[in-house]
Amino acid sequence: MTVLQIQALEGIPEITAGDDLVAIIADAAGDTLRDGDIVVVTSKIVSKAEARTVQADDREDAITAETVRVVASRTSESGHVTRIVENRLGMISAAAGVDASNTPQGTVLLLPLDPDASARAIATGLRELLGARVGVIVSDTLGRAWREGQTDAAIGAAGVAVFEDLRGQTDAEGRLLVVTQPCVADEIASAAELVKGKAARRPVAIVRGRGDLVGDLDLPGARSIVRPAERDMFRLGTDEAYDQGYAAGVEEMWEERDTAG
Amino acid sequence: MTVLQIQALEGIPEITAGDDLVAIIADAAGDTLRDGDIVVVTSKIVSKAEARTVQADDREDAITAETVRVVASRTSESGHVTRIVENRLGMISAAAGVDASNTPQGTVLLLPLDPDASARAIATGLRELLGARVGVIVSDTLGRAWREGQTDAAIGAAGVAVFEDLRGQTDAEGRLLVVTQPCVADEIASAAELVKGKAARRPVAIVRGRGDLVGDLDLPGARSIVRPAERDMFRLGTDEAYDQGYAAGVEEMWEERDTAG
Repeated sequence: MTVLQIQALEGIPEITAGDDLVAIIADAAGDTLRDGDIVVVTSKIVSKAEARTVQADDREDAITAETVRVVASRTSESGHVTRIVENRLGMISAAAGVDASNTPQGTVLLLPLDPDASARAIATGLRELLGARVGVIVSDTLGRAWREGQTDAAIGAAGVAVFEDLRGQTDAEGRLLVVTQPCVADEIASAAELVKGKAARRPVAIVRGRGDLVGDLDLPGARSIVRPAERDMFRLGTDEAYDQGYAAGVEEMWEERDTAG
Repeated sequence: MTVLQIQALEGIPEITAGDDLVAIIADAAGDTLRDGDIVVVTSKIVSKAEARTVQADDREDAITAETVRVVASRTSESGHVTRIVENRLGMISAAAGVDASNTPQGTVLLLPLDPDASARAIATGLRELLGARVGVIVSDTLGRAWREGQTDAAIGAAGVAVFEDLRGQTDAEGRLLVVTQPCVADEIASAAELVKGKAARRPVAIVRGRGDLVGDLDLPGARSIVRPAERDMFRLGTDEAYDQGYAAGVEEMWEERDTAG
């Protein structure tokens, strides 16, 4: 395998609640889908089809409702608050995936309730309808620590390996490649973004050439990419962690004083 | 633009110090390189060509030498220390880019001194030699906060936009897309990893289909992707920030006590 081809599907209509994404994708793909293809679907249309649009005069209130834990927040000089939060899915992102772009005024779009289940439903449907053994990735645009800008990542996956399994493989010197675990699902989502674009209505891309990653529908989903907070060295923002430590230090000294006094 | 094609170059030999990467890549690519192609080169072969191999009985010592700031560290139950550090280039990564895989025993490979300059030299050379206006990205494999596994990212770039310029573009509802700034250089590096692989000797890939991103050689390099620490909400690990805060809280109370007493 040395050639990868990534193609955006043309002709995907505006998606509304209740739309059958399997039929719409199959229709747009025609008979071009083959065994081993990976279908990358922007989470936005999955959310729309699943009726995840909610009324929200205030986007900030919607973010608060979707947040299970505030990881970090910062207020700019102009008073704008940026919040990095953990959502129900364990994902860390700005704004908990609450999307106010490309949505009607006065509404916001929430992430799919269970993007792995969404991916599985699409993969199952496409496999049955077209007879092609495809994998499906549901993608979203995420910011990163330490690096500017955003990249697309996998928030749902079905029928495709999310990590490349290098266990047992050796490098050219014969040493085991044990540490490296490429997150191919995120790489595929990023690759697909390059043809889908943000402003255009091309929310689905087909990635061909890594059929080795496509497998059973019960492969681990994108939930397995999320690192649990307790194992994450960056589970809390620097300022937030400092403030917690400061408060604990002061409290510790108060207790000592009380004991001593 | 709706099709992207990514191809790994075959026949790149083992690279050693002083090798002419321009000639080697041009030779492997034959006359297939065209205007608008983006050449993604694994940093490892750039380092090798630039003689960045150093003797190191102890990889940890080499990491220490490359580190300008320890961002976070954690010791596992087995005593293994994981360090997340900032290197000379401002990049945050595990192990400061010190690579001990695919290198001769007793040696490690350091990152190129200036990957943007390396990319510029390769892009300049290829443009002159082949007459094709190509962009060049030097890629490395990086871990992330919050997400398991690694993805490839751009650590050097020349003649290619590292961010997609969406300024002035509107979404389908006519609202300005101001917040989103896709880091296309990182997405291209990730896409290229999917055909290069880790174990195989395919360190160069050609990405065709985003010629709109290819431009002058003086476009900002990958250094502009690195978020300065002072603007980063995760400039320090959670435990490290907590400990600093705790110490400050205790010290504050000592000073108060001294003043009061």
